[in-house]
Amino acid sequence: MTVVGHLINGEMRTDAARTQAIFNPSTGEESKQVALASVATVEEAIAAAEQAFPAWRNTPPAKRAQVMFRFKTLLEENSAKICEMIGEEHGKISHDAAGELQRGIENVEYACGAPELLKGEHSRNVGPGIDSWSEFQPLGVVAGITPFNFPAMVPLWMYPMAIVCGNTFILKPSERDPSSTLFIAQLLQEAGLPKGVINVVNGDKEAVDVLLTDSRVKAVSFVGSTPIAEYIYSTANANGKRCQALGGAKNHAIVMQDADMDNAVNQLLGAAFGSSGERCMALSVAVAVGDEAADTLVAKMKAAMAPLKVGAFSNSDNDFGPVITRAHQLKVNGFIDSAEADGATIVVDGRNPVVEGYDDGFFVGATLIDGVTPTMESYQAEIFGPVLQIVRVNTMEEAMKLINDHEYGNGTCIFTRDGEAARYFSDNIQVGMVGINVPLPVPVAYHSFGGWKRSLFGDLHAYGPDAVRFYTKRKTITQRWPSSGVREGVSFAFPS
Amino acid sequence: MTVVGHLINGEMRTDAARTQAIFNPSTGEESKQVALASVATVEEAIAAAEQAFPAWRNTPPAKRAQVMFRFKTLLEENSAKICEMIGEEHGKISHDAAGELQRGIENVEYACGAPELLKGEHSRNVGPGIDSWSEFQPLGVVAGITPFNFPAMVPLWMYPMAIVCGNTFILKPSERDPSSTLFIAQLLQEAGLPKGVINVVNGDKEAVDVLLTDSRVKAVSFVGSTPIAEYIYSTANANGKRCQALGGAKNHAIVMQDADMDNAVNQLLGAAFGSSGERCMALSVAVAVGDEAADTLVAKMKAAMAPLKVGAFSNSDNDFGPVITRAHQLKVNGFIDSAEADGATIVVDGRNPVVEGYDDGFFVGATLIDGVTPTMESYQAEIFGPVLQIVRVNTMEEAMKLINDHEYGNGTCIFTRDGEAARYFSDNIQVGMVGINVPLPVPVAYHSFGGWKRSLFGDLHAYGPDAVRFYTKRKTITQRWPSSGVREGVSFAFPS
Amino acid sequence: MTVVGHLINGEMRTDAARTQAIFNPSTGEESKQVALASVATVEEAIAAAEQAFPAWRNTPPAKRAQVMFRFKTLLEENSAKICEMIGEEHGKISHDAAGELQRGIENVEYACGAPELLKGEHSRNVGPGIDSWSEFQPLGVVAGITPFNFPAMVPLWMYPMAIVCGNTFILKPSERDPSSTLFIAQLLQEAGLPKGVINVVNGDKEAVDVLLTDSRVKAVSFVGSTPIAEYIYSTANANGKRCQALGGAKNHAIVMQDADMDNAVNQLLGAAFGSSGERCMALSVAVAVGDEAADTLVAKMKAAMAPLKVGAFSNSDNDFGPVITRAHQLKVNGFIDSAEADGATIVVDGRNPVVEGYDDGFFVGATLIDGVTPTMESYQAEIFGPVLQIVRVNTMEEAMKLINDHEYGNGTCIFTRDGEAARYFSDNIQVGMVGINVPLPVPVAYHSFGGWKRSLFGDLHAYGPDAVRFYTKRKTITQRWPSSGVREGVSFAFPS
Amino acid sequence: MTVVGHLINGEMRTDAARTQAIFNPSTGEESKQVALASVATVEEAIAAAEQAFPAWRNTPPAKRAQVMFRFKTLLEENSAKICEMIGEEHGKISHDAAGELQRGIENVEYACGAPELLKGEHSRNVGPGIDSWSEFQPLGVVAGITPFNFPAMVPLWMYPMAIVCGNTFILKPSERDPSSTLFIAQLLQEAGLPKGVINVVNGDKEAVDVLLTDSRVKAVSFVGSTPIAEYIYSTANANGKRCQALGGAKNHAIVMQDADMDNAVNQLLGAAFGSSGERCMALSVAVAVGDEAADTLVAKMKAAMAPLKVGAFSNSDNDFGPVITRAHQLKVNGFIDSAEADGATIVVDGRNPVVEGYDDGFFVGATLIDGVTPTMESYQAEIFGPVLQIVRVNTMEEAMKLINDHEYGNGTCIFTRDGEAARYFSDNIQVGMVGINVPLPVPVAYHSFGGWKRSLFGDLHAYGPDAVRFYTKRKTITQRWPSSGVREGVSFAFPS
Repeated sequence: MTVVGHLINGEMRTDAARTQAIFNPSTGEESKQVALASVATVEEAIAAAEQAFPAWRNTPPAKRAQVMFRFKTLLEENSAKICEMIGEEHGKISHDAAGELQRGIENVEYACGAPELLKGEHSRNVGPGIDSWSEFQPLGVVAGITPFNFPAMVPLWMYPMAIVCGNTFILKPSERDPSSTLFIAQLLQEAGLPKGVINVVNGDKEAVDVLLTDSRVKAVSFVGSTPIAEYIYSTANANGKRCQALGGAKNHAIVMQDADMDNAVNQLLGAAFGSSGERCMALSVAVAVGDEAADTLVAKMKAAMAPLKVGAFSNSDNDFGPVITRAHQLKVNGFIDSAEADGATIVVDGRNPVVEGYDDGFFVGATLIDGVTPTMESYQAEIFGPVLQIVRVNTMEEAMKLINDHEYGNGTCIFTRDGEAARYFSDNIQVGMVGINVPLPVPVAYHSFGGWKRSLFGDLHAYGPDAVRFYTKRKTITQRWPSSGVREGVSFAFPS
Repeated sequence: MTVVGHLINGEMRTDAARTQAIFNPSTGEESKQVALASVATVEEAIAAAEQAFPAWRNTPPAKRAQVMFRFKTLLEENSAKICEMIGEEHGKISHDAAGELQRGIENVEYACGAPELLKGEHSRNVGPGIDSWSEFQPLGVVAGITPFNFPAMVPLWMYPMAIVCGNTFILKPSERDPSSTLFIAQLLQEAGLPKGVINVVNGDKEAVDVLLTDSRVKAVSFVGSTPIAEYIYSTANANGKRCQALGGAKNHAIVMQDADMDNAVNQLLGAAFGSSGERCMALSVAVAVGDEAADTLVAKMKAAMAPLKVGAFSNSDNDFGPVITRAHQLKVNGFIDSAEADGATIVVDGRNPVVEGYDDGFFVGATLIDGVTPTMESYQAEIFGPVLQIVRVNTMEEAMKLINDHEYGNGTCIFTRDGEAARYFSDNIQVGMVGINVPLPVPVAYHSFGGWKRSLFGDLHAYGPDAVRFYTKRKTITQRWPSSGVREGVSFAFPS
Repeated sequence: MTVVGHLINGEMRTDAARTQAIFNPSTGEESKQVALASVATVEEAIAAAEQAFPAWRNTPPAKRAQVMFRFKTLLEENSAKICEMIGEEHGKISHDAAGELQRGIENVEYACGAPELLKGEHSRNVGPGIDSWSEFQPLGVVAGITPFNFPAMVPLWMYPMAIVCGNTFILKPSERDPSSTLFIAQLLQEAGLPKGVINVVNGDKEAVDVLLTDSRVKAVSFVGSTPIAEYIYSTANANGKRCQALGGAKNHAIVMQDADMDNAVNQLLGAAFGSSGERCMALSVAVAVGDEAADTLVAKMKAAMAPLKVGAFSNSDNDFGPVITRAHQLKVNGFIDSAEADGATIVVDGRNPVVEGYDDGFFVGATLIDGVTPTMESYQAEIFGPVLQIVRVNTMEEAMKLINDHEYGNGTCIFTRDGEAARYFSDNIQVGMVGINVPLPVPVAYHSFGGWKRSLFGDLHAYGPDAVRFYTKRKTITQRWPSSGVREGVSFAFPS
Repeated sequence: MTVVGHLINGEMRTDAARTQAIFNPSTGEESKQVALASVATVEEAIAAAEQAFPAWRNTPPAKRAQVMFRFKTLLEENSAKICEMIGEEHGKISHDAAGELQRGIENVEYACGAPELLKGEHSRNVGPGIDSWSEFQPLGVVAGITPFNFPAMVPLWMYPMAIVCGNTFILKPSERDPSSTLFIAQLLQEAGLPKGVINVVNGDKEAVDVLLTDSRVKAVSFVGSTPIAEYIYSTANANGKRCQALGGAKNHAIVMQDADMDNAVNQLLGAAFGSSGERCMALSVAVAVGDEAADTLVAKMKAAMAPLKVGAFSNSDNDFGPVITRAHQLKVNGFIDSAEADGATIVVDGRNPVVEGYDDGFFVGATLIDGVTPTMESYQAEIFGPVLQIVRVNTMEEAMKLINDHEYGNGTCIFTRDGEAARYFSDNIQVGMVGINVPLPVPVAYHSFGGWKRSLFGDLHAYGPDAVRFYTKRKTITQRWPSSGVREGVSFAFPS
């Protein structure tokens, strides 16, 4: 059976003392093994990255960007293969995998602009004959730890920008679906990156803890669940690293009575059930303002959900695929059970769908639950499955309070035609990424991605302009050239 | 005896259950008492700040800036009084206090530019008919904890920018010299700030710990020593706050043989002995490259130090004043003793200077020590006194290695006429603030202040452009207005 | 009788060979004379400005900004006096003059941010060991030529930014109401500006032509009518100067049926009749979409106009004052006559209003005309009086076509509650300044002011960020320090 | 014989009523004909561009950038072919053509960053509940007119940025060497650009004048000689277009005594003789400060010039090739004659070199002239040939005065090791592009290119950040959404 290994110092390596099974979620079968890196293997990767740093740091940004230009081309040329790899291990349908990859490529495109993005600020004459300027210098060896749900995109949020800023990188991807991630890193190597600048180590907590504690690693980017994010953040900080750790979400859409309801329903279908709801930006709660809006919404959603098809990744006619594991399938079903037990109405029931020819796949069908209230367990938790819950409220204020009171603050959306409602909502909602008639308001690659409250730990958001700041440190130079023959008086005062 | 109290919700308050003595370091006498805030008092301040937040947040930035314009005027009008207050409790001479205050005012001036600084990024057509933009919204209640050595300037690094960005603020100044700090905050109140937007609580660890743990405080800025900075940073982060914590320093100047030596000596005098060396940017080590440079430097320094006058703050003819406490005076003397014991040469000895009429003042005279080596205790520690140590090396690389190996990375400087040496130094030195023939390269208010390595914990530097990012959080809005009658197809793919 | 003179090289000067009468438009009486500068006088001003340039250019931007901080304070302290001066010569009521002045002061505030605004771009390692950066250096002597309708504000759009960028300035204000303009320039002098940095010459075409042709003047900013703007632009360019020339306007508001009609009416009252309509951003045409909207609008406007009071500047209960001259009063009346003759309906007739005690004042009352069509002369011309014309159309597209076809493209506005309509309008309308429910969308001082089409000649808009670019020229430096002992090969190829 | 035609609306066209010969300067033979477009042909191109504009304008910038990514790839794949085409018609050696092309490609890379570069500025709460933002919208149809000396690079300075900003483009290249230019435009078409977005018309003054006067063309970029630049600028402006027109140059290097003289000589060889000196950034005057520097420079230059080889473009061992025409060859020789006649010393004489096998080629050999003075004709004119003239002065001030007094201000350079000299020079020299030990300080693609004085007409420089501003116009939107039920009072005052 194939063992998925590591990429260290430009070479593929397998460190197979410990391995773990990889499953094909569409069939439920084990398909490969992934090597779990030992402490020594991770340290080897760190050593390679450290050794590669000085030369890479001194490579002009415009030359570093050339690697990203070639990387973009290679990603596009290999997209079908990458989507297949994603589908096989993650389960998402090719159109969804292609969307993920495209978003990842957009981050590579942004990295191509490094010479512009790395410009510092220059001030002539901060005092008589004195100039001052700031530069943004790379940190050194930095690491990324990424989740299973976007094996292509989330790593591409991190290392293209980290690397083009002059750092060297160690990626620890999810052990559930590592193949596409590893292949993509190989493409970057092929694009002309010097050895050791990008390294991938597969592994588990053993590998992660090396990255969090080794003093040669200067920064860590993480995307995953909130409890782990919090652990990563505090551990990395306690070990003198900078860290940004993105955690969980519970994204609400407010549906106003004046919304274009057919459009809202169309948008919600994809936002709630796409990728089986396994997205940190998935729209999992629709808050209808007024019973009229709620009744319309429920009726139209029910009708629209009828033709939805859940099935294997390999059939692109399917709308979405399985969830990631058997355990997760049972957990999602359990949340539906609990909502039912708590008195909510299961309008469309996706538990245990029949998927012909894939009896052992980890499938959950699209599920719609009405009458959900904030005290229910299904409301409070991040389900991470194809389940849309409807909460009914009487006013927009009530809807906004629900969102603002939730511990997470990743994404949110309002459906309305009214300019005033949209502006009030976007101004006052305590959420980092806001959609106006856009249910999945993932910022484009040239803005930055980040939630508020317990959805993100750290000052700076992921990718986009914030990534430049996260992956560099500011150095400020003040310069004065004394003119010959001129002598200055002594000043004991603080310079002003 | 006067008890220095707190400013809470626009009113002066004394919470005198616990107090602590304030000394006049020039005379060695106790001059006042400072109230030490209880948990309840700090919580009251937090409550006031939290209540003031919503209205202040919604005040347009241009209106918030008006308060800063008036504040600048009031600071200038009251500068003599402020300098007197600083001198009495800190000991610095009026010309030095005026320099400090001026640098503080420059941060107020920068805050006046809030409407420009708070501009977000707007992108038309991130997709067809879809716009996206980022805003920088205030955090809420934020806190600052500041050291004794710049009672006027360091608080002004923090709250003008925090407040003009829309936050409300709680300042915990040093309990050694709180009077000028409190008075300046009253001037800000007088400038028209709504009640509760600025609050000052004097206190000790009890007060600090409330600020670090209360969930209503969203961010903490700190300046002090490295061990405390590390405690502040990890505690604040563990309590879900963003934090920037600035710590200690050991700032080296490299003196090259080609330097304009008279200029270097003139610059070093102020940089090493100004404010008795009690500055985190004080130049405390001169690394001479080659014995010729070293011998010239020592001879010229010795001659230039002869006329230096240490004395009481009240005589502006003095070059510098006492150190902050008796304990600190003894500690500085102890470092000189240890250098002597370790074999260094005390070229100019400032221990126990005679200051007529001020026999009990905490004075240490300007001290020059030659032949210092990296293993000496006096080299490794931050002395924070008027002591300049000379280290002799053979090459510029050797000098740079010394600096790069030190745990601190706050400021540094090179004296040379050579463009190539300056560029190589500034590019490769592992220090955040670099001077080229500028011994105290404190960035101007429109750049940002921050060291590297263990001199700063956090991603973002103090004041300047970084302060905007530290005191705000990014919100990204994506907007699409569906056109009537147009229906979009469902997409289950990740939006690309 | 008082003769209003010039400010040259820091001194008040009268060059009275030729003078012209200044009137008080509220009484119709001649109140003062203004000196008209000769060629020699203007050349003297240019010489003073040229002499002052080198030292001012080398003054650090932060020091230059200090003058602007003091200037703001002086303007605020003298605002009542300035408003009185404006009222007496221009005729506008004190609340309107205060608004104008406040907008002017905001440009001074923006200029206080010069150190931030003048930052250049710095790139480390554009090639191996090669750095490059851009600076924005001042031009030298620059000139401004300003209109009668904003004697305080429009000059303040220009010279604070020009001067703080390091240029020296010559202002040629309107000869109709020069007193407040001159007084304000004196306040700037009082604020600590070195002699010769600001100069004011009153005059007519003789003075203007010197400014347009003298090679020592490097740039000209102009605000006035389109034919003059075009003359200024082509003449200045032909004489090797950079130039921005702002001309006329015909600003339309679209009123949609879904608009908050009471709000629209309230907004239109001020936008159409404030300052007697003598504003280049005055809203002079309301395009109602659909007869229902039109009928409601006309009825509500008529009712709202009933209590409006036109009268002398000295009574702050008046809503607006006289127009600038007898000739202009007759011209405005003539446009109303022509509309009537062309078949439009004069709903409210402001011709020859009775203003007790001011029989000879140049008054025109608020006028509302319905049924205006694009072919009427009153539609095509810029009336510059308190006249609002209603055009009725059937669709929003028709309304937008009207606006896009007009030769001017200064300001425009839509009244609606609909997000989609607002976005479509703002995206596609061929106008430089767009309001959404804001009838007078004058950009704030930290954005920039400028129309499209024949409303502005030049690349860069007035004030705000564009002013930095207009009043500076870019210099790009590329720097490489050869390392000793290293020899590079010869390259005959173009460097890449 | 091949006739080089036009690219209009995506199709290759020949409009052969009038044609002109194209020569191979290495052999002196006529090799092709170029079609000269009639008025009708140019108008057809304008019509195509105008028709393509609305859809292209509405294409999201990120999609527009995709074309540029593909264009870069195509340019790299076809570089050998392009260099051959350049060499054949222009005469430059392949290494030089490759350098030119590489610089051009860098502008395409910069254009790939359009989504970042086109970001507008957004201000929340410019007033209570009022937001304002600026967008940078495309102009429409814009044109470029380019010179013979960089048939690949200079067009690439213009249209990638113009097009990625949303404009459609008409290029009028030099009729001397149009083939590579046309081929490159075809590659852009092939990269996926919609028809009509890029158009190329070959031609002469007849074509140019249509572009300058047709009202559908909104902007013109030009590079050429100063007299033509001035004509272009004034004509375009008089016809209501924005224009930037880059003209001639006379670039001086100052050689200080402390310079690394071998390095200076190496740098000067390429900068003076590369591409036969037919570059607007060619270094044609070396000003030696002091006779010692001058003597060393002349001696070392003479030695270094000995092995230089002038010859046909097809032999890549040659250092540089022929000049563009027989007439130009004679003109360059004439300048050498005049210098000799004026008393200068011809140290190395390049007149009428022997190039075996290419007797009829338009060759001039590398020429060094010492003892040149400012009054000589050869000093005053732009020779545009492989001629380096030495001027001797006594002080750096004298050298700078020479440069500052010259009518041109394109590029300049200083050779020194001294930081103070470099800073004084770069601060005070009246030239737009300054090199410190960099003789050809062409800004990289992410800065902007532009001279001062009579070397550039217009406010904004070519390519880089300035290109975004040149090829877009600013639109500022101010937005307020009235809240239901809230009525505002009427304000007649100017909004403040």
